[in-house]
Amino acid sequence: MSTFVVVGGDAAGMSAASKAKRDDPDLDVIVFEQGSWVSYGACGLPYYIKGEIRSLDDLVSVTPEEFRKERDIDLRTGHEVVDINPDERVVTAHGTTGEVVQKYDDLLIAVGAEAILPSIDGIDHEGVYTLDSMTDGKELREYVARARSDGNLQQPDRGPACQYLETCNGPIGIVGGGYIGIEMAEALAANDFEVHLFQRSDRILKTFSEATSEIIAEHLAEQDVAVHLNSDVKALAGDDRVEAVVTSDTHVPVEMVLLGTGVRPRTKLAEDAGIKLGETGAIATDSYRETNQPNVYAAGDCAEVKHVITNKAVYVPLALTANRHGRAVGQTVAGTPTEGGGVAGTAAIKAFDVEAARTGIIDHRKASDAGFDPVTETIDAKSRAGYYPEGGTVRVTLTADRESERILGGCLVSEYGEGAVHRSHALVAAVTERVTVDELSNYDLAYAPPFNTTWDPVLTAAKVLGGHL
Amino acid sequence: MSTFVVVGGDAAGMSAASKAKRDDPDLDVIVFEQGSWVSYGACGLPYYIKGEIRSLDDLVSVTPEEFRKERDIDLRTGHEVVDINPDERVVTAHGTTGEVVQKYDDLLIAVGAEAILPSIDGIDHEGVYTLDSMTDGKELREYVARARSDGNLQQPDRGPACQYLETCNGPIGIVGGGYIGIEMAEALAANDFEVHLFQRSDRILKTFSEATSEIIAEHLAEQDVAVHLNSDVKALAGDDRVEAVVTSDTHVPVEMVLLGTGVRPRTKLAEDAGIKLGETGAIATDSYRETNQPNVYAAGDCAEVKHVITNKAVYVPLALTANRHGRAVGQTVAGTPTEGGGVAGTAAIKAFDVEAARTGIIDHRKASDAGFDPVTETIDAKSRAGYYPEGGTVRVTLTADRESERILGGCLVSEYGEGAVHRSHALVAAVTERVTVDELSNYDLAYAPPFNTTWDPVLTAAKVLGGHL
Repeated sequence: MSTFVVVGGDAAGMSAASKAKRDDPDLDVIVFEQGSWVSYGACGLPYYIKGEIRSLDDLVSVTPEEFRKERDIDLRTGHEVVDINPDERVVTAHGTTGEVVQKYDDLLIAVGAEAILPSIDGIDHEGVYTLDSMTDGKELREYVARARSDGNLQQPDRGPACQYLETCNGPIGIVGGGYIGIEMAEALAANDFEVHLFQRSDRILKTFSEATSEIIAEHLAEQDVAVHLNSDVKALAGDDRVEAVVTSDTHVPVEMVLLGTGVRPRTKLAEDAGIKLGETGAIATDSYRETNQPNVYAAGDCAEVKHVITNKAVYVPLALTANRHGRAVGQTVAGTPTEGGGVAGTAAIKAFDVEAARTGIIDHRKASDAGFDPVTETIDAKSRAGYYPEGGTVRVTLTADRESERILGGCLVSEYGEGAVHRSHALVAAVTERVTVDELSNYDLAYAPPFNTTWDPVLTAAKVLGGHL
Repeated sequence: MSTFVVVGGDAAGMSAASKAKRDDPDLDVIVFEQGSWVSYGACGLPYYIKGEIRSLDDLVSVTPEEFRKERDIDLRTGHEVVDINPDERVVTAHGTTGEVVQKYDDLLIAVGAEAILPSIDGIDHEGVYTLDSMTDGKELREYVARARSDGNLQQPDRGPACQYLETCNGPIGIVGGGYIGIEMAEALAANDFEVHLFQRSDRILKTFSEATSEIIAEHLAEQDVAVHLNSDVKALAGDDRVEAVVTSDTHVPVEMVLLGTGVRPRTKLAEDAGIKLGETGAIATDSYRETNQPNVYAAGDCAEVKHVITNKAVYVPLALTANRHGRAVGQTVAGTPTEGGGVAGTAAIKAFDVEAARTGIIDHRKASDAGFDPVTETIDAKSRAGYYPEGGTVRVTLTADRESERILGGCLVSEYGEGAVHRSHALVAAVTERVTVDELSNYDLAYAPPFNTTWDPVLTAAKVLGGHL
């Protein structure tokens, strides 16, 4: 009997374990998870903290008991793997009952990523949080519940702006204008906190189009979130407890700080075992997620992935890739070698009443670095037939290579519910299939008045961009 | 100076005229339109009749005056073209001021389609309507307004079911369970009419998946629309005015009947001029929309189109194709030969609180006829993360060829607002780009909890179908 050992029990790890066991029931599948939570929807934490989700357990798609009983996986929570020995094919874990030495035939490293902490003074003050784990989520929810006079989080509507309230919670400083920063700004503002968002560069959501960054920044301001751009946080002032966010220009009093300054892959375990990292700093793998050590795989937020446009390794730690590559490794280990595909760098976000998605390469410098001659067009289009009673505006940014006319990437932003995110699916396909602007503009996309104008905004963008090639 | 004559002033015709004139301002562009309306959104008529759109003028995207003044197009409304002479390159029109004989260098036939009237008794009774033109729309709106006691159509919410109202409008019989029939069922039920929908075959929306037909039929019933399947209408009873719909099994009293039994291409003008029709009965063209007569083009609902999967001619009269092919002809005539692409047979519909879209080939008989070995899978998936407070179910039907594993088509249905239609865009791309099931399942589609589960329903469907290949 062959043994498949998985290190890390979240998206990639549990997808791999489940798929391997399902495809080959004779396989011994052992998962070591350091914490007590497995297979949890970390992406849901901001909505839990906001108060829209009742319990942390609701974020768990499959419980440890279900993995053990129904899927016959030997899941060992509370076990930290401290050593991998690829020559002997054993891992060593520290668990509740002492040290465990486990042999493996195949091994998957799926230990994820960890929050990057900026190297500034005051980071260790009380009242400084990250959103890096279920435990963080629990603490932040408790913080919000304590601060609210009514203690009731089940209130998705924000209510009037903070400064007009007699009692206002906070103020809170959020460092970083990426997904976590923006989703947490919504979660906190919805609970009547005064929120200050600090972004080092000149725009939030830097991987999205400039047009999208602008729209979302304006929308945050409309929701009374103070957005501080070009604001490099120098220190978090205070004695024991954080009292202010200090930048070169400002000194903003706060009673709590959330750090949303990105993540980096957890690689120490792999490095110590002689497993190679790539240029991105994440674990390098081939297209089957195998590392330089035979039968040792890496997937999810600790590993590099190939970009579908450049075919080069990138570090894009997102949930779908972790699930997909974990599943592919499980299938491979069970006897059917499976690649699981590259990434297009697709991402989506909801910010209050706005939604946005991006895919591919839209940054001109990055496009040039990859050998393209980028040209970009941004259009505004109605989200539904002009005469239809509902509707809003979809702003579409499309980037193509001037010579090949191939679509390189795009970004869409609209009011929440007007379809920017789902409409981006066509662009993901176009980027992946190396479609030209002209080919995209000829797509026979679904049309009816409640859903788009006759030419969906994506088609209109392609038509307009085509006119400039 | 060269002259471009267009016959028909709706989607294809005005798109061609506008594009040709914009690309080549020296071109003389003359449009003959039989009626008084041009460039109108016929797809919006059900919503106008429902009362959600205030005025018929709101359906007009560009007015005749704007075409004449701003776009410098010689638009002659009230002119019926009665003859085309391809040898002499002249058309003859009957207008308000008598007969006009006009020479052309290039000619576009864009005369659209007309309602198919079933050959049954009583079709000429008073109270029998079609929805074939703006005039029909006006008459139906007036009918609805007369019937409503309050005369107020601006009431999108339907209110309680007919049988529970003290005063109930109708009953009305709708013959045909296609787009028009279903959209009009919504429009009429929203105005408190008792509605009976008669469908000859065993399901409505026959080009959609069976799962979709079932869901929408059930939903219509929930909205108190009586759906009569397997009900071939034999006659419309009555003396002068229609009084009942008669099938082999039933005799349903009605005070009005709407016929939504499909359309056929208007081809008489073309046939009389020696222009060839295809096997579908619509005007045959090459990929540039040129007919067998040099410099005579045909586009929109009167012409055939090529299917992207089979590359064979089909008759799929829909708005986007008319716009796109009209525009392509305009570009060609102005000096840049442009094909405008094929169709994937994509369509979308909203029925009360449900939305659906379909694309490609999902019917097994049609797939087999085209040389494929079809295999289909239908799945139900959550429309958003399971823990997210909003959300519903997306039912996805996916059909592929067993040998090549290529995606042939698909159909999605969900609650209105849960994204069945916009999510179909990925399938249109997959069908057009000849993507395999495995490739589709690896698409890096946008994910965030408010928009999908980590695997979008389309990806899940591909994953499940892939497991059965």
